[in-house]
Amino acid sequence: MTSDRFLKACRREPVDRTPVWFMRQAGRYMKEYQQVRAKHSILDVCKTPELAAEVTLQPVERFALDAAIIFADILLVLEPMGLELTFHEQKGPVILNPVRNQDDIGRLRRVDGEAFRFSAEAVGMAKTMLGGRVPLIGFAGAPFTLASYAIEGGSSRNHVTTKQLMFRRPDQWHVLLEKLSDGIAAYLQNQIQAGAQAVQIFDSWVGCLSPGDYKKYVLPSITSLIGRLKPAGVPIIYFGTGTSTLLPLMRSAGSDVLGLDWHVELDEAWARVGFDIAVQGNLDPVALFAPLPELKCRVHDILQRSGNRVGHIFNLGHGILPQTPVEHVEAAIEYVHAYGTR
Amino acid sequence: MTSDRFLKACRREPVDRTPVWFMRQAGRYMKEYQQVRAKHSILDVCKTPELAAEVTLQPVERFALDAAIIFADILLVLEPMGLELTFHEQKGPVILNPVRNQDDIGRLRRVDGEAFRFSAEAVGMAKTMLGGRVPLIGFAGAPFTLASYAIEGGSSRNHVTTKQLMFRRPDQWHVLLEKLSDGIAAYLQNQIQAGAQAVQIFDSWVGCLSPGDYKKYVLPSITSLIGRLKPAGVPIIYFGTGTSTLLPLMRSAGSDVLGLDWHVELDEAWARVGFDIAVQGNLDPVALFAPLPELKCRVHDILQRSGNRVGHIFNLGHGILPQTPVEHVEAAIEYVHAYGTR
Repeated sequence: MTSDRFLKACRREPVDRTPVWFMRQAGRYMKEYQQVRAKHSILDVCKTPELAAEVTLQPVERFALDAAIIFADILLVLEPMGLELTFHEQKGPVILNPVRNQDDIGRLRRVDGEAFRFSAEAVGMAKTMLGGRVPLIGFAGAPFTLASYAIEGGSSRNHVTTKQLMFRRPDQWHVLLEKLSDGIAAYLQNQIQAGAQAVQIFDSWVGCLSPGDYKKYVLPSITSLIGRLKPAGVPIIYFGTGTSTLLPLMRSAGSDVLGLDWHVELDEAWARVGFDIAVQGNLDPVALFAPLPELKCRVHDILQRSGNRVGHIFNLGHGILPQTPVEHVEAAIEYVHAYGTR
Repeated sequence: MTSDRFLKACRREPVDRTPVWFMRQAGRYMKEYQQVRAKHSILDVCKTPELAAEVTLQPVERFALDAAIIFADILLVLEPMGLELTFHEQKGPVILNPVRNQDDIGRLRRVDGEAFRFSAEAVGMAKTMLGGRVPLIGFAGAPFTLASYAIEGGSSRNHVTTKQLMFRRPDQWHVLLEKLSDGIAAYLQNQIQAGAQAVQIFDSWVGCLSPGDYKKYVLPSITSLIGRLKPAGVPIIYFGTGTSTLLPLMRSAGSDVLGLDWHVELDEAWARVGFDIAVQGNLDPVALFAPLPELKCRVHDILQRSGNRVGHIFNLGHGILPQTPVEHVEAAIEYVHAYGTR
């Protein structure tokens, strides 16, 4: 029982049914995951290959998913670059020594694959445990989103400090993004060498920018990053939220697949970026809390909008939320299978 | 020295120069405001007509603005309906007895103008103090945004509890939105009777919805609210953030002016909703932190995109942020005047 639907859809090849996986499919909504997390911090799980691989497999064992994604955090790449990362129960990720000026940027260390040995080992173990059942996706944060975390020192509502650096010192901004891109490229190439069969770049915060600012301050670094990953030969997925006005620019960055959030209608957004690129999405994560008949309608609506075109991967428009009912996740996957079969 | 540019632009009449005002123009970025707030809580200022009027006038005294907006909070309407509202220094507004079920909705009280006497008095006083220099705008929260605050008990990142009620009990949801609309209509009519020359409806959180959900769960109540306000004869501005994919639907709700945030390009968004409606916006509030030459370029870009068409009101894409440099606010207004003169 092996599935290559996901990789085929990434390459816009015909599939027998629409592939499905969910961002943060290994997470707090699963008892199995909670049991691991009761004994280990999130950073411990990420950095202990056995635990990361175990958690990666949990949703694949339980649901009929078409892909696994390595359990990790988008900020891991910042640690070997010299930033101190911790996770607060309430505040989420916190960076204790944020990047605020030219000196801070200068101090960021260049990293190579060796810094990510834990990640390569986790990918290798998960790959072995998967035994070819479904492909394994690697991932990292995008340069802009990592820059925002590094500068703000954590999550931010208005990204004021980030945009200040961007507007006031575009020269320093571009140096920072290039350094981050180097680190991300090394991290992802390492995951690919270890066996990741596709990679997703999460630009979670990029939706705070106007199209003009995205084009000027973000597009060059993400384009160069994707260009450097291309020779590795695995599909590259580029995803952000709140990006409806950025999608045509994001498309031009060169990824194989563009992630769509639930603020856009799949057919309309796909037409806008062009049907010659694969798309992934786009169920509202909160729709998983809806009664099952309502959830079913919503899954069908997305599949209908995909029009059975080559190159659609079913996913959420953002990560699964912690309180999501696990039976609804199961049901949503069944609905995709039932309705998305050619 | 009186300005009727703002009201003319709302009605799509020709103006000598583009009118400008800023959301939250009375706020923490001004020393004068901080001095008042050092002695009084935000709710005290809102509910003491002398203080609310004083604070309303502060930015008009200091800057060459084309409109004043009454100092208030979008949640004030919830108190006489029976919800207990407090403001936390960190968390912002908190509702101590949130609305979670049919009983809670049933208990919400219907209100009339008498409940908002403080607001009418504040509007009257501010109007007198303005002495006709610039028009005075009244405002309220929109039904969806107030429902989200009432249900979540404060700000929310994912609006899970709100959407759960919406998806699980659409019947109760619509009753809640109708009750809120009644309260908002009474509140705004009261402000108009007291002298408000335009009203703005803030749908701050509505950008969390897909177009389909907006159409089904929000559009009916906002359309009915705007319809009930129309006979009062003052321009109605409808504003939200993260709304780029909702704009055509929002336009159909019937307001005179549509507020645009900075995620859209003004010309592109205006063309999409139709040039036969006025628009307001749309500078990124963080652009006020940029160096002045950069800020100037951004102001010019928006004015250029407006193409000197009738019906553009210059504003930010969201409220002024607390740390905004006051000289940059002043400069931005000057740039609008200089470049936006016909």
